[in-house]
Amino acid sequence: QDLGLRAATYMIWGAGTDVGKTLVSCGICNTASLRNKSTPGSQVLYYKPIQTGFPQDSDADQVASVCGAGVVSELGFHAAELNNDEVADFPKLVGGDKPHGTVVTRTEYAWTDPVSPHLAVQLQGRPVSDEEIMKAVSGRLNQFYDEAAGVNGSVALVETAGAVLSPAPSGRVQADVFRELRLPGILVGDGRIGGISNTMCSLESLLLRGFDVTAIIMLDLGLKNDEAVRAIIEQGAYGLGREPPPVFVLPPIPKRRSSVISESSLKSWFTQSDSKFDKVVKLMHKAHAERVSRLAGAKEQARDVLWWPFTQHGNLAPTDVGVIDSRQGEHWSVYKARDEVGDVAGETGILSKQYDGSGSWWTCGVDARTHPIVARSVAYAAGRYAHVLFPQQVHSPALELARRLVAGAGAGWASRVFYSDNGSTAVEVAIKMAFRKYMKDHGLLSLADADLDKEKFVVMALEGSYHGDTLGVMNAQSPSVFTGPRQFAWYKPMGHFIDPPTLSLSDGRWSVELPEGVGGEAPSWESRSEALDMQARLSTPLAEAYAEQARGQLKAAGASGG
Amino acid sequence: QDLGLRAATYMIWGAGTDVGKTLVSCGICNTASLRNKSTPGSQVLYYKPIQTGFPQDSDADQVASVCGAGVVSELGFHAAELNNDEVADFPKLVGGDKPHGTVVTRTEYAWTDPVSPHLAVQLQGRPVSDEEIMKAVSGRLNQFYDEAAGVNGSVALVETAGAVLSPAPSGRVQADVFRELRLPGILVGDGRIGGISNTMCSLESLLLRGFDVTAIIMLDLGLKNDEAVRAIIEQGAYGLGREPPPVFVLPPIPKRRSSVISESSLKSWFTQSDSKFDKVVKLMHKAHAERVSRLAGAKEQARDVLWWPFTQHGNLAPTDVGVIDSRQGEHWSVYKARDEVGDVAGETGILSKQYDGSGSWWTCGVDARTHPIVARSVAYAAGRYAHVLFPQQVHSPALELARRLVAGAGAGWASRVFYSDNGSTAVEVAIKMAFRKYMKDHGLLSLADADLDKEKFVVMALEGSYHGDTLGVMNAQSPSVFTGPRQFAWYKPMGHFIDPPTLSLSDGRWSVELPEGVGGEAPSWESRSEALDMQARLSTPLAEAYAEQARGQLKAAGASGG
Repeated sequence: QDLGLRAATYMIWGAGTDVGKTLVSCGICNTASLRNKSTPGSQVLYYKPIQTGFPQDSDADQVASVCGAGVVSELGFHAAELNNDEVADFPKLVGGDKPHGTVVTRTEYAWTDPVSPHLAVQLQGRPVSDEEIMKAVSGRLNQFYDEAAGVNGSVALVETAGAVLSPAPSGRVQADVFRELRLPGILVGDGRIGGISNTMCSLESLLLRGFDVTAIIMLDLGLKNDEAVRAIIEQGAYGLGREPPPVFVLPPIPKRRSSVISESSLKSWFTQSDSKFDKVVKLMHKAHAERVSRLAGAKEQARDVLWWPFTQHGNLAPTDVGVIDSRQGEHWSVYKARDEVGDVAGETGILSKQYDGSGSWWTCGVDARTHPIVARSVAYAAGRYAHVLFPQQVHSPALELARRLVAGAGAGWASRVFYSDNGSTAVEVAIKMAFRKYMKDHGLLSLADADLDKEKFVVMALEGSYHGDTLGVMNAQSPSVFTGPRQFAWYKPMGHFIDPPTLSLSDGRWSVELPEGVGGEAPSWESRSEALDMQARLSTPLAEAYAEQARGQLKAAGASGG
Repeated sequence: QDLGLRAATYMIWGAGTDVGKTLVSCGICNTASLRNKSTPGSQVLYYKPIQTGFPQDSDADQVASVCGAGVVSELGFHAAELNNDEVADFPKLVGGDKPHGTVVTRTEYAWTDPVSPHLAVQLQGRPVSDEEIMKAVSGRLNQFYDEAAGVNGSVALVETAGAVLSPAPSGRVQADVFRELRLPGILVGDGRIGGISNTMCSLESLLLRGFDVTAIIMLDLGLKNDEAVRAIIEQGAYGLGREPPPVFVLPPIPKRRSSVISESSLKSWFTQSDSKFDKVVKLMHKAHAERVSRLAGAKEQARDVLWWPFTQHGNLAPTDVGVIDSRQGEHWSVYKARDEVGDVAGETGILSKQYDGSGSWWTCGVDARTHPIVARSVAYAAGRYAHVLFPQQVHSPALELARRLVAGAGAGWASRVFYSDNGSTAVEVAIKMAFRKYMKDHGLLSLADADLDKEKFVVMALEGSYHGDTLGVMNAQSPSVFTGPRQFAWYKPMGHFIDPPTLSLSDGRWSVELPEGVGGEAPSWESRSEALDMQARLSTPLAEAYAEQARGQLKAAGASGG
């Protein structure tokens, strides 16, 4: 689904449970709405997609009670089921007369048991799918963008349940589920003993899914965890060449008496923390504006500084450039400006889902659930090996893959694997190997250079086929607008290019159209399985006719061998 | 340093503090030594490199008190300083008369403050470097291998301080420090609320550093975290095509009275847990044997199934194959069998550090500290984008890199960037671009194909230079044993190959040796900076002589342009 970009919107992630995540949400909403009090139309949205222990526990209610004025409290249908006597009252206005701008809180899906969402579903039923949750989140955010469009100071928070990799109701980890929107995040770090590791591990799990983290905020529990985290992040924990997020530290929360924090001490904590939250809110707006500006400027900047492959730059309109924010399974999340999709985008544009028709040149056919698994394997390989010079060396993945290839795809015909970089160089290697094998089999390796030069080596290839863009494989392609002396002055067709038959489906019937020069009757079939049964086809008169055509062309070209 | 492989050796990692890490170490050592009681010479080593709160807190003492018989307790010099009155007593035999095999416990570096090691150093001094710690760990393990060599049942544990990414005394995270040995690990998961996320995040941070995890063990605290973790791991959290580690769950620990567990309830807990620990210990031995067997078999298997580039397979002895276990900065960790390094390797071989002289073809010049930073960036890119088809598209990393390249290396001469896959295809693209530019500038694009064919396009290149192995760049290399019709039958030298001058350093003097056909006096210099001052050289008579030589060769070949 499309997602607007018309206001600063952040996920609130926790580096553990009970690290102060909702306290941070309260502080951000409180400070943001106080800053907004003289900005008509501005809105602060606090959105809790998944809540357990409801209605006794309600993070939305906590936020509402801190932001005491002008709070509109909403419940989704799923959450409202648990709150029967009040369902008619929602959305309702709660809170007193504090000088805040408008705050909207919403709880979407809720369960009564105060346990992890996946356990709540096991205990209580009422399951919701990951897709349903993401549809609700993006729908509610888009509604917020419509309501608070273009107003300075509007902010939306989406607070997850539990920690970064806590299970969603489906049992999948939440960071995988929420990845679809790739909202920038605020990570609430862990100030307790062991909290440095929890904070850093959580940050790494977010990075591993391609999430950006705009700030880390943690409570001061006297252990200086913030200093350690800041030092580790500044030494490169956020990756290469990227500005690491600042680490904010908040005053210790008031001591609890009988596990409940008194209202007055909480109030004084928010007053104490206001200057920190003010910095956080300013950073959220700034980082959001920079993100939109990066996305919006990318088309023009890319046209200035890039040469693309397979692209006629002279004909390229700015809107022809796709700005990719991320991959989402078989789709991309693509930035679209107002001039592309109309007023729905607002000044800031939107992120739109676009189907990747070729699977990015047939490398990314994986669905959204498999992508993080592949990414984890890439991360492991990078972490274990980086790059290993391969001649005369071996490591477990190279060996394992080779053995599986030989036993699987290569069963019966391949005994070894040669790894190459890409399709083009792989075909060059294959041609080299074939020529070398031919030379060896026919005693040509012992010829003097001058005599070897007189031999003519050609390949047989399909007319119109494409093998890549290095010279060796271009020479194995027939001349075309893509492959000719204007593309590469050294190009010289060195193949016999055979017209392939055409297979078409029309009115439920599969028919072969024969190329010129191949005699015989063109067959047709009722079913795809018959049409594609290659094994059965190899002994037909038509197969012999093709072979005859190929032999004839080779003979005419004077090639030896067969 | 070299590290033996002669007994099952595991890191004990914690997915948090207070998750039961030392309890698991106790259980493993207890069960392993009970199993070993009738195996003469077997040994269980429990090694604690970093201990804070010492000597009041001592994980080694806990292990010793559980494994009550035949325990040899050692202190490193650093730890012994804190234990002055007892230092003479170490190593000492402690424990009673239980029927255990030999157990050795050792604490290496210790501080009295019961805080994170990096804070203990801040408070108390006595710093130790990461290098010193790793030297101590590998030294002590190698001593253990010498003592317990080849005896079935010998096991060593290395227990980290705190959690996976808790700081070492240096402030660096421990998983980065211990990565140098890449010991397989046992991850003690977190059975508490929020523990699913802590466990999964910790696992991902280990994978991100190329660590293997053989088992996950967690306490049952009534939340069924083990079931959730097992389900998530089985859905691919351990990566593609790799057997996920089993998740063991241990009975709840006895309720504590006044925070101390009574000895009798602890004893009954170990009895209850013995069958689980028995499975764990068996798995540890099995996985270790499989690891050694994979390493030991890799050479022969690789010779069967791989074609290597740049390798004469006929001349290849088994010992010529390098088996890479991991990268360690500028080094590899390489498997060596006894026939390569002698008896020190034992039957199992060793892992040896070997300098990667070419930085794996100039791609991996980073040191051990930069490697995880790069790996994290790779992980982020894989997690965010996977692969994106590039024509007419742009994403932040491609744009940012292009802008930096144009402003940096390309300042003054480049305005755009074309990305290619590797050096060979990059040179092919460069030649294509140059030819196309020449055609455009000289009005050749409007020629008919037949007329264009009459034009001759050549490149000027250094004699003996190497640009890659695809045909286009081979044609830009002069004939040699690596580049000729035997290597690629279509090879045709299309360059003018100019002999380069040779620069040599002898007796402190830098001297140029001129190639044949270039007149003038060969200069020499006292300093390297003079010798390599290219700018000053461009206006010398010698530079003009080189240019004259090149022009003459081009003219002789009948090329137009200049």
